Amino acid sequence: MSHRKLRMGMIGGGPGSFIGAVHRIAASMDSQIQLVAGAFSSNPEKSRAAGEELSLDPSRTYQSYDEMFEKEKQLPEDQRIDFVSIVTPNHVHFDPAVKALQSGFHVVLDKPMTLTLDEAQKLQKIIEETGMLFCLTHTYTGYPMVKEARQLIANGTLGNIRKVYVEYPQGWLWKNFSEEENKQAGWRTDPKRSGVAGCMGDIGTHAFNLAEYVSGEKLSKMCADLNTTLDGRTLDDDGIVLLRFENGASGVLMASQVATGAENNLRIRVFGDKAGLEWQQEDANSLIIRHPEQPDQIYRAGGNVSYLSSYALANTRTPAGHPEGYLEAFANHYRNFARTLQAKLQGTAPEKEWLDFPGAEDGVRGMAFIEQVVKSGQSEQKWTSFEA
Amino acid sequence: MSHRKLRMGMIGGGPGSFIGAVHRIAASMDSQIQLVAGAFSSNPEKSRAAGEELSLDPSRTYQSYDEMFEKEKQLPEDQRIDFVSIVTPNHVHFDPAVKALQSGFHVVLDKPMTLTLDEAQKLQKIIEETGMLFCLTHTYTGYPMVKEARQLIANGTLGNIRKVYVEYPQGWLWKNFSEEENKQAGWRTDPKRSGVAGCMGDIGTHAFNLAEYVSGEKLSKMCADLNTTLDGRTLDDDGIVLLRFENGASGVLMASQVATGAENNLRIRVFGDKAGLEWQQEDANSLIIRHPEQPDQIYRAGGNVSYLSSYALANTRTPAGHPEGYLEAFANHYRNFARTLQAKLQGTAPEKEWLDFPGAEDGVRGMAFIEQVVKSGQSEQKWTSFEA
Amino acid sequence: MSHRKLRMGMIGGGPGSFIGAVHRIAASMDSQIQLVAGAFSSNPEKSRAAGEELSLDPSRTYQSYDEMFEKEKQLPEDQRIDFVSIVTPNHVHFDPAVKALQSGFHVVLDKPMTLTLDEAQKLQKIIEETGMLFCLTHTYTGYPMVKEARQLIANGTLGNIRKVYVEYPQGWLWKNFSEEENKQAGWRTDPKRSGVAGCMGDIGTHAFNLAEYVSGEKLSKMCADLNTTLDGRTLDDDGIVLLRFENGASGVLMASQVATGAENNLRIRVFGDKAGLEWQQEDANSLIIRHPEQPDQIYRAGGNVSYLSSYALANTRTPAGHPEGYLEAFANHYRNFARTLQAKLQGTAPEKEWLDFPGAEDGVRGMAFIEQVVKSGQSEQKWTSFEA
Amino acid sequence: MSHRKLRMGMIGGGPGSFIGAVHRIAASMDSQIQLVAGAFSSNPEKSRAAGEELSLDPSRTYQSYDEMFEKEKQLPEDQRIDFVSIVTPNHVHFDPAVKALQSGFHVVLDKPMTLTLDEAQKLQKIIEETGMLFCLTHTYTGYPMVKEARQLIANGTLGNIRKVYVEYPQGWLWKNFSEEENKQAGWRTDPKRSGVAGCMGDIGTHAFNLAEYVSGEKLSKMCADLNTTLDGRTLDDDGIVLLRFENGASGVLMASQVATGAENNLRIRVFGDKAGLEWQQEDANSLIIRHPEQPDQIYRAGGNVSYLSSYALANTRTPAGHPEGYLEAFANHYRNFARTLQAKLQGTAPEKEWLDFPGAEDGVRGMAFIEQVVKSGQSEQKWTSFEA
Repeated sequence: MSHRKLRMGMIGGGPGSFIGAVHRIAASMDSQIQLVAGAFSSNPEKSRAAGEELSLDPSRTYQSYDEMFEKEKQLPEDQRIDFVSIVTPNHVHFDPAVKALQSGFHVVLDKPMTLTLDEAQKLQKIIEETGMLFCLTHTYTGYPMVKEARQLIANGTLGNIRKVYVEYPQGWLWKNFSEEENKQAGWRTDPKRSGVAGCMGDIGTHAFNLAEYVSGEKLSKMCADLNTTLDGRTLDDDGIVLLRFENGASGVLMASQVATGAENNLRIRVFGDKAGLEWQQEDANSLIIRHPEQPDQIYRAGGNVSYLSSYALANTRTPAGHPEGYLEAFANHYRNFARTLQAKLQGTAPEKEWLDFPGAEDGVRGMAFIEQVVKSGQSEQKWTSFEA
Repeated sequence: MSHRKLRMGMIGGGPGSFIGAVHRIAASMDSQIQLVAGAFSSNPEKSRAAGEELSLDPSRTYQSYDEMFEKEKQLPEDQRIDFVSIVTPNHVHFDPAVKALQSGFHVVLDKPMTLTLDEAQKLQKIIEETGMLFCLTHTYTGYPMVKEARQLIANGTLGNIRKVYVEYPQGWLWKNFSEEENKQAGWRTDPKRSGVAGCMGDIGTHAFNLAEYVSGEKLSKMCADLNTTLDGRTLDDDGIVLLRFENGASGVLMASQVATGAENNLRIRVFGDKAGLEWQQEDANSLIIRHPEQPDQIYRAGGNVSYLSSYALANTRTPAGHPEGYLEAFANHYRNFARTLQAKLQGTAPEKEWLDFPGAEDGVRGMAFIEQVVKSGQSEQKWTSFEA
Repeated sequence: MSHRKLRMGMIGGGPGSFIGAVHRIAASMDSQIQLVAGAFSSNPEKSRAAGEELSLDPSRTYQSYDEMFEKEKQLPEDQRIDFVSIVTPNHVHFDPAVKALQSGFHVVLDKPMTLTLDEAQKLQKIIEETGMLFCLTHTYTGYPMVKEARQLIANGTLGNIRKVYVEYPQGWLWKNFSEEENKQAGWRTDPKRSGVAGCMGDIGTHAFNLAEYVSGEKLSKMCADLNTTLDGRTLDDDGIVLLRFENGASGVLMASQVATGAENNLRIRVFGDKAGLEWQQEDANSLIIRHPEQPDQIYRAGGNVSYLSSYALANTRTPAGHPEGYLEAFANHYRNFARTLQAKLQGTAPEKEWLDFPGAEDGVRGMAFIEQVVKSGQSEQKWTSFEA
Repeated sequence: MSHRKLRMGMIGGGPGSFIGAVHRIAASMDSQIQLVAGAFSSNPEKSRAAGEELSLDPSRTYQSYDEMFEKEKQLPEDQRIDFVSIVTPNHVHFDPAVKALQSGFHVVLDKPMTLTLDEAQKLQKIIEETGMLFCLTHTYTGYPMVKEARQLIANGTLGNIRKVYVEYPQGWLWKNFSEEENKQAGWRTDPKRSGVAGCMGDIGTHAFNLAEYVSGEKLSKMCADLNTTLDGRTLDDDGIVLLRFENGASGVLMASQVATGAENNLRIRVFGDKAGLEWQQEDANSLIIRHPEQPDQIYRAGGNVSYLSSYALANTRTPAGHPEGYLEAFANHYRNFARTLQAKLQGTAPEKEWLDFPGAEDGVRGMAFIEQVVKSGQSEQKWTSFEA
């Protein structure tokens, strides 16, 4: 397939941004996307410095995203950006996303979708109205073995789903840090920039998204116990949520940022009435299938693995035994988004595997989860209905 | 130390009993205890057959535990049993235990303590009044690395405890079995023999006991979501319980017998404000300590391991790298009970490490957990206070 | 099956003996064997003290094994020992074994069989002539998953065997110890008591035995690089051996006692032209089968595991998920020996699974391995033929 | 630091090339390098197709590397390539590398360095004479935990090195494939394109390089047992090599491509007289340090891990718990090469961590290993000296 590289503009992701760097690596990994423009910081000086470090044409390092949209629109079609990647804190998601779409630029947006559910629903509507492509980077559904897990459940290998355990223990907020010590900790513990939830918005949404994606089941109600463990914090830094799904399955979601010593080992277990499965990020290239009366099986990622589904195969780059990790999972979303966008630009039909990247519905459900898990955490009633 | 072997009588544990065989192995492993008498079944024929297979003197295979108590009391002091091991289903715990104590025999009792909390409290009172020794076989606290975990928390290595995750996933009741197919499944799913809880009584209590033992914290309230997954069952076969401890720590207890394909991987993670720890039965000889700013550590079981606490060392039999398992953990309770009993018989003071076996308080708290977790499961209110 | 307990006498295993305690636990675990007599030390005082601690009848604690054989022979048939368990250092294996057999007592003997190959061949001859039962406790072939591995290879699951990697890294002799500090280190590094090899005799033989047992192939030649790493030692404390088997398969045996920090993680991998397998003692209850074009499989130990061979099932005591370890593996040899002996005493045919314990042929091959690996280590020629 | 992107030309890596795609991903990952030219195949049609798929300017897709060198030299300095990446089969390494250097282009070269040791030594001389930068992509030393292992040994944490176990089991050549079925298998089993060794050249060299890199010790002699397992093959597809290092340490190198079911789990263990360490690619983000009298430690990769050496930190992109894999390890070589090249272009001194990428000396030693391991495999003498 012959095509040109897609041109990307970035919003946010200046000096000290962890996730900005991750997006750039993910976008560039497969040589399909080229970063050509950016408004990297609300501080023009920092934005310019970032552009310089990234070897951008200075004329395309902008002082604001408004400026970027305006100027880029005026460029010839074969030069202007195709899409933007928005990697700002949560309170600066909605406005640039809407403006990008309305300026004719497709959007890749870091999760969670917006600051509030209301914003998310509005954004979803605009996405639908404009018909633009939209990708929300829920990283973990980009792992090939997560895709395999979803396919195995979809094809009935596990039978009817009974039980979902999903957990995301982190320890990095185990003590209080000043904003100087830890920029990440700063905005993530500030409700003005993070939204109504802390831990649940930052990582609980990932776990929620993973649970629905893998199991194929939709949440119907929940019962949350949220904690603000450290003095001086406003938002939750920890929580456990009982889950009920529409099909009757039950489960639990555990997320913490004060699990001292824990790193980032997102893990999911799903049990059906025929078999169970288990995946964890620390051993991301394996997927364990547990059988009641047969030996357990270890499915392994790899482009040469004959028994894997087309979805897993479409999301690997190396043969089995060459571990792919977090950055590749992230890059899979970019690659699928890019392939779909190339197809759109060329007027061809995308492969079904390319379309498997998270979008507006994931985003709206995620924001509904955030708002309602906080409400459930405050309730004396056991169950709070989930509506999205 | 010179002493004779202790003489044990067994109640229950006839043909087809899994746990009876386990108790016999555990009791005999260290050559401190000799099985000399038994009332192995309510069916006299089966009891006699069991005694014969176990090479017992036929005159000491009894038709009932009442007969055993009566006849053994009449034997000379240097022949009669020292203690009984009661391994019957839950509804036959209270009566033989009370009668044994009142007949002057010490008691080892399989968990849970009794059929109801009321029975447990009565039994506790009789234990205190008679001054007899009582051991409740909560197997998992017999593992050396579980003892090490408790000691590390007790000595402050983890700081103040914030979080306890304990889980006990099994899959063996993933489908319905007839009593012929699976005797274990039969009585464990029958409320008359099991009590008010199924899964929570059978394995939830183990998880609860482990959580309190390791963390050193006491449960204060809980919020349970219990399930009876399969049609035709009366009792819970699955559940998840939010936990709150008296010191403010929170946590979760997950137990299931319908987690298809899961075996028996009891696992606990505890996080304090200094460090975290993790232990799981599948890797029972390791204990992981997680540090926020130092490499994680792997503590390893073994009688030659210089850095272990006296409690861990007193509960191993081999050097590091010779895995000890479930039967050794079980045998540790018997050995500690036997050592304490030998000291009592000889009028000497037991070592503090020997006294570290589960007793009446564990039993009463376990029964309180069972009754109140069921109550919580039925409540529409989020939290149910825990009282024991 | 009705039968009496077998009566065991022990030779060696007094205070400070690691392996003596292991043998006693292994023998007593299944309530089929009773220790009734012993000559526990060449020091009569120590022997008596050991007997007392073990609650033996003082009249049956002997000052020497000669005395034991003489006195026991004179006891009535229904009291005298059935067999002896010999757990002395290597230089005291041959003489008591021969005398026991000639006195009419069956023999369980700790490995390696004798001090020299010549002794081993003589002992084998006497075993054959007397028709007595003989068990050599090569512990590791007692693990159920090791038995499963052998059966899977025997039934063709792996195809023709190409490759055997077996390794046994220990670190406990990483520095020099005085005999006071470490009794085990004392005799194991002394050629008078250990024989011509140190590490190769102590653990290399285990690895060799495991390789032949699992693969079903016989060694034909080898090329050894043996090391005496620490100053002041006479015997090898480390070595690596290239292996060639009669069927053309190749392999390597790695054994060390100076692998600082290593515990005791015996591990074997075998590859055929259809599949491969992997087992290691640290995860003893799992057996990994690796397939070229299918997901790998995890076979798991457990008495309730429907897909296991009769050999694995006959060597477990608990359901899957209740880890069995080193002591159970050791006890399996005793149990199989005891069951075979019971059958012999009753004139019935033993089950084929019971006969699967190591015997004289394993012992002779092991001694041949020891002598020839030392010879190969000294040779400038690459290959040394293996003959046994 | 402000700088432009480096411009790369690629030689080889056309359709069906695994390693070409890997090089492109690795080069592009960090946005420091831009692929601008290529001679992707000796078949002009295929070369053009590759360039088109990679969105290259058609005028810079060449029919041969000779053409590329000639044309690129004529481009203005601010457009022409800075370096070439050579990813052809082994027999097409020497010529393009020499010509690139002599044309003023720096070189990144896939391993092994050349077809013969003689070529390698000549190439080394030319590199020295031209003063150009040269990087040989021995992938595995790019892993941050491999770098940490080297540093821990260099700083004395393990003491004097005694023992090195390195292994590289693969199974992908477990049966014969036609060149149509498997292009990789084709040239790797053909001596004209691969050189004198098969498995030892393809992966044995990686293991050899890793052993020397991590241990810091130099090989002095070896004893090889090489095998050509499958009928119809000319080159070794498997082998085991006893190793001796200059400091007296011993070890073993195991490499196989017929270990049926094995993937690619390169693994190294090193033992000193103070401690040991273990790393394996399947758990690439962990490094285990084994201590004789302290708990083992798990070092973990991550840019935020305070206890890691500057070398490990300089080779990560994400915080702990976000697994980085094979592509990131590969990219680390490119990034370090690029940073060093940027420094050279700007006339500044490179950081010492940037210089830690494999170069000509690694290449020559690797070729010496290949030639001499084959010689050793053919020898009847045990030891063959290693000279490089």
